[in-house]
This record gives sequence, structure tokens and C-alpha cells, in this order.
Amino acid sequence: MKRKITLKQIAKELDVSISTVSKSLRDSPEISEDTRLKVQAFAKLYNYKPNNIALSLKNRKTKTIAIIIPEIVHHFFATVISGIEQVANESGYNVIICLSDESFDKEVINMEMLANGSIDGFIMSLSKETQNKADFHHIIEVINQGMPVVMFDRVTNDILCDKVIIDDNRAAFDAIQNLIDNGFKKIALITTVDYVSVGKLRTEGYLRALRTNDVNVDENLILRIEDIDNCAVPIEKFIAANKPDAVFAVNELFAVTAIKGAKKIGLNVPEDISVIGFTDGIISKYSSPSITTVSQDGIEMGGKAAKMLIQRLESEDEEEEEHYRTEVIETHLVERESTRALKRGSF
Amino acid sequence: MKRKITLKQIAKELDVSISTVSKSLRDSPEISEDTRLKVQAFAKLYNYKPNNIALSLKNRKTKTIAIIIPEIVHHFFATVISGIEQVANESGYNVIICLSDESFDKEVINMEMLANGSIDGFIMSLSKETQNKADFHHIIEVINQGMPVVMFDRVTNDILCDKVIIDDNRAAFDAIQNLIDNGFKKIALITTVDYVSVGKLRTEGYLRALRTNDVNVDENLILRIEDIDNCAVPIEKFIAANKPDAVFAVNELFAVTAIKGAKKIGLNVPEDISVIGFTDGIISKYSSPSITTVSQDGIEMGGKAAKMLIQRLESEDEEEEEHYRTEVIETHLVERESTRALKRGSF
Repeated sequence: MKRKITLKQIAKELDVSISTVSKSLRDSPEISEDTRLKVQAFAKLYNYKPNNIALSLKNRKTKTIAIIIPEIVHHFFATVISGIEQVANESGYNVIICLSDESFDKEVINMEMLANGSIDGFIMSLSKETQNKADFHHIIEVINQGMPVVMFDRVTNDILCDKVIIDDNRAAFDAIQNLIDNGFKKIALITTVDYVSVGKLRTEGYLRALRTNDVNVDENLILRIEDIDNCAVPIEKFIAANKPDAVFAVNELFAVTAIKGAKKIGLNVPEDISVIGFTDGIISKYSSPSITTVSQDGIEMGGKAAKMLIQRLESEDEEEEEHYRTEVIETHLVERESTRALKRGSF
Repeated sequence: MKRKITLKQIAKELDVSISTVSKSLRDSPEISEDTRLKVQAFAKLYNYKPNNIALSLKNRKTKTIAIIIPEIVHHFFATVISGIEQVANESGYNVIICLSDESFDKEVINMEMLANGSIDGFIMSLSKETQNKADFHHIIEVINQGMPVVMFDRVTNDILCDKVIIDDNRAAFDAIQNLIDNGFKKIALITTVDYVSVGKLRTEGYLRALRTNDVNVDENLILRIEDIDNCAVPIEKFIAANKPDAVFAVNELFAVTAIKGAKKIGLNVPEDISVIGFTDGIISKYSSPSITTVSQDGIEMGGKAAKMLIQRLESEDEEEEEHYRTEVIETHLVERESTRALKRGSF
């Protein structure tokens, strides 16, 4: 039985990383000649064929779009997919979804698998590991070969392509400004460790709002969560120790956990402490009290990304290809029960 | 530019349904000869090539599995995908996900697109419309051509293949039996309209438990929700009108809405009314009070489905192919704050 050998198998056989295999097959000067030749010889021996999409791209339309996202058990990504599906289906495109599971290797493998002729273009959001490594060769290669890529939410400046983003820094700034305008003095931040771009940008927005309003940044009021699955105890301790009058959480899981923690130590929400989350998912809507949140419209984000990709796929004008656009989705504050009545600010 | 014509385009051009095109191309006697010939001639003219997977199947391994699910904004399906990913990745398989959006046509189009050589097998859960139409020709055809299919959750007896299911009837029966054992007298049911198999089976389990315990079935205590997006008002009215001492909801959205509705009319949960949901998602975990629920383990379900499919893909024994199995995932009651303390019954 003749099986097509995979990137992963080559990497395993030669005891090198998937990234090394991928770069060697593209003759990247980053890889030593010795390794390159070894990988290429091995791939040839086993009949491995790297994509050659450029050869046939203009003659072939699969009418299929691939989405690559970090994870699926996340309401935000699910709504982005819905937005992409709606626009894609209206334009006669099918949609295929692959998960990177926050893994660089899986992101590379999935792109490799799909770019071989099954699809016309990618819509993607980077895995944490890819952001962390800042290794984007697999994406740049696909774009260089002529296959359009639209990035959303978790993007990077290192890649030239169409992008759809939330202005996370500004959205966080506006939320904090709103709290300051409403008389809150001790505003805590619950955020992630900093290598994921959105958590970083939201943290920067928080800091910028404090500085703009001449509020001292108190490092004790910033909690950085390392392990999302075990955040209940650190969040409860953090609130008990610092008694903030408002908490800004960079996602809704932290927000609902902050509310539970506050209740547990006898604080009332919103009477004693107000809580604002980020990302308007089902937890925010259905928890009691329901949670005031900075809403990112995933449906709109997905829809915009799909429109940008389809426009590029169907554009006859080759000259246009260098004019990449970045669209910014507006956020707005959805006021619910977890905050004392807010005067509307700049949202 | 030469584009591959799609099923959808043929259907549109000839003003017939996608199902008719698909059946005509397979020369199904269900379709009139006139229509069949017309579709076939048109397809030939535009160079449409139906799958011919049987020809090459045994010689080719893509090491890719396709999942087709009805929707993605649903925690249960997301956890099933996680379970499939885990097992598939461990065995060196990639996973591709497509959504039917509860549409029969999209289910047919997605299977058609993927069965053309991109993947080795399917794991799928039926769309509502497919269940409603009871038209399974697209799935039967794929199986007949030698490509394995494993169905989960929303399955049908009309297809012979491997299946992974929850015993929904029994899980509902056990939950109601538990409530009866704990002295509840007026047990209401909030369910869906009946054509989706799981809602139907859960309703049957509810009815069976009442009958087994010689409790009269009071039709007033059964609410069938037609429009899930607008269920708040009917659920609140239903509880106000009937004042049940317990509510069994066939999904967690109905359960959390029942709790909100009960609170709104001045009832305390669980003191005045206990609520049990079905499907253990994030709403059940994070709502206040948190919700007692019949848990379906999506990770386990996905893992089992992936194992069954991979076993079949890697089995050398052709004889074995007729011995299809149906695996039943155990459910259990996750007791939280929305029920008065329950004595443990048969769970």
C-alpha cells in the first residue's frame, strides 16, 4: 500500500522539527545545507510532494475557503465561524475548518494539507505558540505562492496580508475611561500572561487609561493568570487582598470567576464591586448577575474577513494585490447587571 | 477560466433540488428517467465529475478525517470535536470540520466536496433538516463506495454504520425517576418540537418514568418550544401558570431560562422549584445558581467515534466490515445548586 508520507513523519524519521522540514523543503537559507539536503533526499525517496499551488492557481477554483483557528470550545471563535459561513455561503463558497489547538506544528501541518489544492484561500487566527515563536514562514510561503490569506483577531505585523482586528488597546482604554468617569478609584485588572497579543493589547489599554487620567498604576491591582483552568483561587485571593471597587477582566471567564470570588468573600456585585468583562459570550449573558462586557462582534468580524477574502479571490486585477487592508471592528459596551449604572462615555 | 461546476450550480441551472441532482448522477430509480438524463447530460457538458472514491480507496490514505456537524455555537459539539482531535492526533490523523448549519443541502454539498479524495472517512451528526426529510442517500452512497462513516448523537436506524450515542431515553428516565424518588410531585418538562431525535427520546424517557411510577401525564406540564431564540416569555408564562415543583429541561438553555423565569415571578431556586438540565455545558457551570444537569461527555463521545473510525480505516480484514457496532456513552447526574439535595438513585 502506497501512502503519502506527511511532514510529521519526515520530521519524526529525521528527528528534526516540523518547521525545519517545512523550511528545508522550501530551500530556506535559515536551515543548514546539510540538513536541507538530507530532508530533501528523504522526501524525494518517499515521494513527498510539497504544494505547488502557484502553478495551477489561476486556472482552478475549488470554491472552498479554509478557516484555521486556535480552538473551538470558545464562543468567540464559534461566532466568527458563523459570520464567515453566512457570507461565504451567500457567495457560493464552502467552508472547511481546521484547529491548530494553539500548536505551531498543527498550524503548519493543517496549512500544508489544505494548500495542496483543496482550497482557494485561508482565513486564520494565530495559535499562541506561533505568536510566541514568531515563526510565520508557513503563512508567508502560502501568500508568496499566490494564495490569499486573511488574518483576524490574533494577527501579526510580520505578515503582509488583509486583516480584521478589534482595536483591543482602545476598547480596553474606553472601558477604563468609562469607569474613571463614573468615579471608580481602585480599578483592578485581571489579565493573561503577555505573549498572546490580545491580552497584551488590553493590558496596554488599561495602563494607558490610568496614565492619561493621572492615576498611579498600582502593580498590586494587576493579576496575571498563568493557568486559566485554575484561576478561581488566585482571583478570589486577589480580590480579598486588594478590595478593588471595580474589576476589568480581559475575558468573560475571568469576569464570571471574579464575581463568584467576590460573592464568596461577602462582597455584593455591583453594590460593593463592579465587574466588566471582555468578549460577549453566553456566560456573560446567562450568569447572575449578568455581566457588563466589551462586546466584540464575532459575526461581523467573520463576515468582514470572508468578504475581504472573496473579493481578493474574485478580483481580476492583479495590480491590486499589493494593497492590503486592515479593517477594525468597532466594539461597544453592553451594560448589564454587574456594574453600577454607568454614564455613557465614548463607546 | 475553467471552473469545476458544483452540485448547487447544476441544481440552480436546471431548477431542481440538490437531492435530485445528487440522485440523478447516481442513476437512482427514485428520479424520473427524463430528469436523470437531463441532469447527466448537463453534468457531462460542464465536465462535472462525481466522486469515484471506490476506484482508488484502497491505494490511498490521506490520513485525514472529516467531521460534519449541524452547528458550532454549541458547547456539546465543540467538546465532541475536542475528543475526536485528541484521539485522531495521537494516531497521526488530521481533522477537517464542516458545518451543515442544520441544512440538508449543505450536508450533501459538504460530503460531496470531501468524499472526492481529500479524506479517508467521516464522523457526523445529522442536521435537523436531514432528520426531518429522512433522506440519507448521500450517506448511504458514500458507505456503499467503501468510505467508512461513524455517526454520533443524532443518528438514524436507516443507515448501517458504526454509531456512538447517548441513551437519551434512559438518561431522561433516570433523571425523572430520581426526582420522583426524592418526593417531587409536579414535574414539568420543557422540550423541543419532536422531529429532532434527541429531544424526542428525552421526552419519551420523561413520559416512561411517569407511567412506570403511575403518575398521570398532565399535558399542561409539558412545554414544547418552537423558537429557541425566543423561549424566555413562553417559559416564564408556563412556570407562572403551572407552578411545578420541579422542571426537567432537555437542554441547558431551557434550564437557565427556566431559572431566570422562576426568579422573575418571585420563586426561589431550589427552595420553591428545582431545575434539572441536560448537556453539561459552561452555562450550567457558571450560572447562579449553578445547574444540576444530566451530563453527556462530549470528549468521550468524540474519542470513541474517532477510535471506531480509525480502527475501521486501519483494519486489514475486509470481512469484518459488516459488523457495525453502536456504542452507548454513559450519562451521569452532575448535582449542583439548582436542585434540593437529591438522594442518589440509579445514576
